[in-house]
Amino acid sequence: MRFATIRTAQGLRLHVKGSSGYVDLGTATGDASLISINGFLAGGVAALDAARSAAERNGPQFTHKDFAPSTPNPPRVLCLGVNYADHAIEGGRAVPTWPESFVRGSGSVIGAYDDLVKPSLTECFDFEGELAIIIGRGGRYIKADDAYEAIFGYSVMNDGSAREWQRAATQWTPGKNFEGTMPIGPEVVTNDEVDVTDLAITTTLNGQVMQSARTSDMIVSVARAVEYFSSFTTLRPGDVIATGTPGGVGFARTPPVWLLPGDTIEVTVEGIGTITNHVVAEEGAPTNWPWTPSGAKTATI
Amino acid sequence: MRFATIRTAQGLRLHVKGSSGYVDLGTATGDASLISINGFLAGGVAALDAARSAAERNGPQFTHKDFAPSTPNPPRVLCLGVNYADHAIEGGRAVPTWPESFVRGSGSVIGAYDDLVKPSLTECFDFEGELAIIIGRGGRYIKADDAYEAIFGYSVMNDGSAREWQRAATQWTPGKNFEGTMPIGPEVVTNDEVDVTDLAITTTLNGQVMQSARTSDMIVSVARAVEYFSSFTTLRPGDVIATGTPGGVGFARTPPVWLLPGDTIEVTVEGIGTITNHVVAEEGAPTNWPWTPSGAKTATI
Repeated sequence: MRFATIRTAQGLRLHVKGSSGYVDLGTATGDASLISINGFLAGGVAALDAARSAAERNGPQFTHKDFAPSTPNPPRVLCLGVNYADHAIEGGRAVPTWPESFVRGSGSVIGAYDDLVKPSLTECFDFEGELAIIIGRGGRYIKADDAYEAIFGYSVMNDGSAREWQRAATQWTPGKNFEGTMPIGPEVVTNDEVDVTDLAITTTLNGQVMQSARTSDMIVSVARAVEYFSSFTTLRPGDVIATGTPGGVGFARTPPVWLLPGDTIEVTVEGIGTITNHVVAEEGAPTNWPWTPSGAKTATI
Repeated sequence: MRFATIRTAQGLRLHVKGSSGYVDLGTATGDASLISINGFLAGGVAALDAARSAAERNGPQFTHKDFAPSTPNPPRVLCLGVNYADHAIEGGRAVPTWPESFVRGSGSVIGAYDDLVKPSLTECFDFEGELAIIIGRGGRYIKADDAYEAIFGYSVMNDGSAREWQRAATQWTPGKNFEGTMPIGPEVVTNDEVDVTDLAITTTLNGQVMQSARTSDMIVSVARAVEYFSSFTTLRPGDVIATGTPGGVGFARTPPVWLLPGDTIEVTVEGIGTITNHVVAEEGAPTNWPWTPSGAKTATI
């Protein structure tokens, strides 16, 4: 099944892809707990059965602007960094022997086709096309062999990064948490619909291919990523795991390529979908803001 | 005013300190949105007025085990690292000229008097006594001069850290996100009750003073911390900002001092309160777990 969260006159509503169009799950089932993906995921097997039944119906088509983030308010976004060897090498790093990981807040999430606002405080705004895991059952101490049972599905995401903020200290947090810099969607594709072990992942900027790899190139696989994060934290329904980006990002190019207003950045994961975001300038930001990192524009990660 | 979240037969309920004891805000006001601190903080000035009125009543006393985390489900825990010069130096680092910051998930939060479970996957379990800011109004681009208007209040916290996990890669995320390793409480003390610019902060282990400093020793002050985080993200009601820990932590001692089952670790911030946690062993963890960092027990941060 494929799920999308749609902006409606009644607010955000979870829909399942029907025989045609998308079917509003709350309306179809009469169950108010199913209007959000977090509520739906908390509903377990019963909710899944209800969705399967609703998916046999027909619903309306929606346009791009109707698509909210496929997971609008994830409890957490747990991210793997440097998880493709070519991305490690282009950043001047050794291929890691232990995962790098960081956390994004839900404040950075936007829809699959929304405008991507370039923060006025960064001049080094970069793209990172990624496969996102959406946790279903979750749990703690999930062995890789059991990981797929803990996963609900997958989306496509762009881990938008303000590089000089990422590099201003050892911890990447600020560069990875600018408001509205993480498009995710357009749908959540359930685990039973797609084998994610060897999918093509492609990022284009204004139509030109910038990143092209396969998910089989990941250093820590989807299943091992679930195992790793569950080593220290209980994965909860709705948690997102970002699986890292392959080589080809903007900072590693000569000269560097930074996202600018007017650009169109697009990420496709084979079998999952495509997100397309038009970069626009931030409006209303203060001038002479006291925090401005500098000197890191050409540095490696 | 002082607020505590109490474990009751009806679940977690936000209480305000009354003329005597604590007054259940939901019951006193008849407003169901005030039973959680997140709901209360979303209620703005009207909720604050209702609490002020309720605080004139009397309520029951509670025992330590009744105290839930002062903020049981914070949307985010944004943390400053290396924010006291003596802690930087003891870690073999230069005093930072730009903030280090990381994120903890709400899964790591426990109550002010709860048992602190030493994760079985760490042998380097360390304490970090800290002042925590609880965001009220919040916002984006908050100048330091306006920061206190965005803050609701303060709690005491322990930023429990699994050092070999923190140091296994460049990003500290796993070491800072073990389940249940962040006691916070016992109350949230409102901003108008306390001036946080120069408070004593003390951590004791089994009664022996391990950390003793003043909040005036912070490199990035409370007001500047709000300004810094609001550079890149909109601070939301209920967000927590951890302001970093002073020198004296366990890893920097010779020999290192690690928390072990049977220990009692206590953090006091003058005028805010004291949290006291008894360290216990984790039960039911798997043996031969595949992820085990090693070799970092004596390394600096």
